[in-house]
This record gives sequence, structure tokens and C-alpha cells, in this order.
Amino acid sequence: MLSKTHTKYIQSLLHKKFRDETGLFIAEGPKLVSDLINSRTFVCQEILALPEWLKDQDKLLLKLKDTTIHEVTDFELKKISSLSSAHQVLAIFEKRKQHVHFETNAKITLVLDTIQDPGNLGTIIRIADWFGITDIVCSVGCADMYNAKVVQSTMGSLGRVNIIYADLINWLKENSKLTIYSASLEGKDVKTIGKLKEGIVIIGNEANGVSYDVMNFVNEKINIPRIGAAESLNAAVATGIILSHVV
Amino acid sequence: MLSKTHTKYIQSLLHKKFRDETGLFIAEGPKLVSDLINSRTFVCQEILALPEWLKDQDKLLLKLKDTTIHEVTDFELKKISSLSSAHQVLAIFEKRKQHVHFETNAKITLVLDTIQDPGNLGTIIRIADWFGITDIVCSVGCADMYNAKVVQSTMGSLGRVNIIYADLINWLKENSKLTIYSASLEGKDVKTIGKLKEGIVIIGNEANGVSYDVMNFVNEKINIPRIGAAESLNAAVATGIILSHVV
Repeated sequence: MLSKTHTKYIQSLLHKKFRDETGLFIAEGPKLVSDLINSRTFVCQEILALPEWLKDQDKLLLKLKDTTIHEVTDFELKKISSLSSAHQVLAIFEKRKQHVHFETNAKITLVLDTIQDPGNLGTIIRIADWFGITDIVCSVGCADMYNAKVVQSTMGSLGRVNIIYADLINWLKENSKLTIYSASLEGKDVKTIGKLKEGIVIIGNEANGVSYDVMNFVNEKINIPRIGAAESLNAAVATGIILSHVV
Repeated sequence: MLSKTHTKYIQSLLHKKFRDETGLFIAEGPKLVSDLINSRTFVCQEILALPEWLKDQDKLLLKLKDTTIHEVTDFELKKISSLSSAHQVLAIFEKRKQHVHFETNAKITLVLDTIQDPGNLGTIIRIADWFGITDIVCSVGCADMYNAKVVQSTMGSLGRVNIIYADLINWLKENSKLTIYSASLEGKDVKTIGKLKEGIVIIGNEANGVSYDVMNFVNEKINIPRIGAAESLNAAVATGIILSHVV
């Protein structure tokens, strides 16, 4: 039986403050949990699952070392789940240690300037993974990559993409020898950019776009031509469209 | 002061059953409410707003006929709002009368097969509006276009795009003289399709793609080449990518 303290401890991981203190985060659902275990990117500290799920997981559980496994009831899982309908298994993983520097040569790096909506951030991580982008730099104003909603909406891509949080101005200064592109409501038609072998693609905030200071580093603005009347495109959709044309 | 009955009545419009019975739906926030009023697509029946908002709306309110306007307090607005933070104004609009048939010649029509997530449906309507698509056919299994989350995530595009709900098999039979494309994990690379002058583009369900019976009508499958490891793309992102290449 899950104790009250244990339940509260798991629920507290929904808050960034507590995730930061413990270095832990939560993922839920059979597909996501097995994807994250298989990626070997994160150490799995604890699994809480229904007996139905546990009975078929011999292969997966063999991959784990020092993971505590709890069988829980439907009622207990519902209590600790952040999903509207709890889904068989919840796992607690250790956050990755922050890598301060990663390679930007001969590849495309995605830079996110204040993507605040967790669903958007998760979807962008999934899009990056689809297009083979392995590295994402988030500004410190972005949503937390370990937020439950981000984790769930990456659909497992979280384990396959390197993500760092950085002061964008400093980071761009260090990488300013590369061509820096940004999504923009003006600029060159995305269809005319052609395939990029290396460079940095910046996606701006949902409401305000790329911030003024960051825009100073941009060498080429990329525009997705508007034919109708919508004022803007969702940030994740814009990311998908740009990457589909330049990767 | 807002009566209990009035408050309950507005809250009940969050449920499809009650929206269907009354023929009404809700939109919230200054930008969305003014966009929908300006589009003149929906009759505005009632406005409930904070005094701060009301005092600057002479121009907008002049466009309204027979609209009841209520000044409400912060507390009252919070009670009737479906948003996590209520935003100055909530308006009740009349749903559009269903148009059974619309023109498909010399244009691209978007067909949605069981798009169940309201956020996805709203985002797709906004994408269609961006790319100048004026007509969307939803299968009866799609989320309700008047669901509060759909309405909010269309960001005003709801007033600029025609949306009908139809039995897709019958509708496709009637329109099968047109070339019918679908998003698919296999098929022709989206980059090689070229610009389409007319045709039908089908987007499938988030988890299962285009359903088997609907797929029988498809003349050309469109694939967004995957370079990395993500298993799929979000349905709205896939819609954006395909339209950006073929419109």
C-alpha cells in the first residue's frame, strides 16, 4: 500500500521547485515509460504500476538496476497521476546532469526563445526528433523540460534529444560564426531557403516572437507566407514547417 | 449582479449536450471576442465583461444588435470562465446553421478524420486560415468545433473558415471526382507533390491515422520524411507541413 507520505512526495514532483531540489521527474503511460527506459538517457528510480502492466514487463524490467518497483491499485495510481485518466504505470526518473556545452558544427541546432507553453515545448522536442535534430538550446524563460505536460507531449523524444538551458545572448555570442536563422513574420520565403547543412534556427515566443536582443544575432529571417487571414501560426507548427523545408 | 441561475446556464455551455440544445457557444478574451464579432459569422447574443473592458468598446458594441451586455465583477467572471485565468470578457454566440453542401471545385478542401483533441482541432482550423483554406469537413468523430478549447485555440479563425460535420464516406463518394490526398507514414515525399490547384487533403486521427474505409478513397498518400526517431508527428503539425508544401 502506498503511504500518505509517499503519495505526497510523488504529487510534489509536479512542481518545478521540488523537481529541482530532488533532481527527479515523472513520466506516465506504458509507451512513454518504456521509451524512456529503452533510451537509457535517464536513470529510472522508481516504478509504480498496476499488476496488469507489471506481469508482462520481464524484458523491460531486466534492463533496470536499483529501481524500486511498487505494485499499486487503480485508486492509488489515480491519486498520484497528473493525467486526466491514469494509464497503468508512472515512473520516477533522474533528470540528466546539465551539459554546459555541445557541438554545433555540421548540424542544425534549434534554439527556443521563451517557449512558455509546456505542450508547445513538448511538441517541438518531438518535431526536432522527427527531423533528426539532436540538440536544442532553451532560453531560461522557456517552460521546464521536466514539466509533466512537456514530458508527456514529447512522446518519448525527450530521451533522444539533448536539451540545455542557457542565457541565449551568451550562447549566441559563442556560436555567432554560424549562420543564425529565425522564424519571422517577414523575411525570406521558407520555400526559397533550401537545405541547410549547418546553422542555428531560432523559434520565438508564442505571443511576441523572437526577442529584440536575440534578433540582433539573426543573419536571415525565415517567413512562412500567409495566404489567408490568421494572424499567426502556433510556434510548434511553425517549427515543423521550417524544419520540413530546411532539413 | 449575476444570478445563480444565469451563472449555471453559462457554465452548462461547456457541455456539448447543452450547446446542441441551445445552439449557443462561448468565446473568451478581448482579442477572440472582437475577432468573432468583426467576422460577422456568428450572432453575438450576450456579453459579460469587466467595466475596464466595456469602457473602451464603443466602436465594437455599435456593431451589435440585440446583444445583452452585462457588466460583471472579477469574481463573477472567474466563476463563469473556462480559462485558467479569466480574461476581461466572455461572450455567448449563436452557432452557425449547418451548411450541408459547399463548393469543392478549384480549391483545396481539408478533411479531418476523427481529430479528437480539441487543441489539435482548433490549431488545425487556425492553420487552414493561415494558408487560405476556407473549407473543412470534419468526420462526426471529430471534437466539437464549439468546444471551448477548440474555440479558444482557433484564435479567431473560427469566424473565417467554413466547417461542416459529415459522414465522410458519403461525402467522399460525392466528391470522388477530385484527387484525394492523405497524410500517411508511407507514400510520396511531401516535397515532390508540388502546388495543388484543387483537391482534398485528409488528415487522420492522432493515434490511428486515416481510417481504413476512408483510405479506400485516397488517390495519393503524402509522407513527411522522417530523419530521426520520433514515431509520429502531431496531427496539427503534419497539417501545417503538408499545407506549406502544397498550397
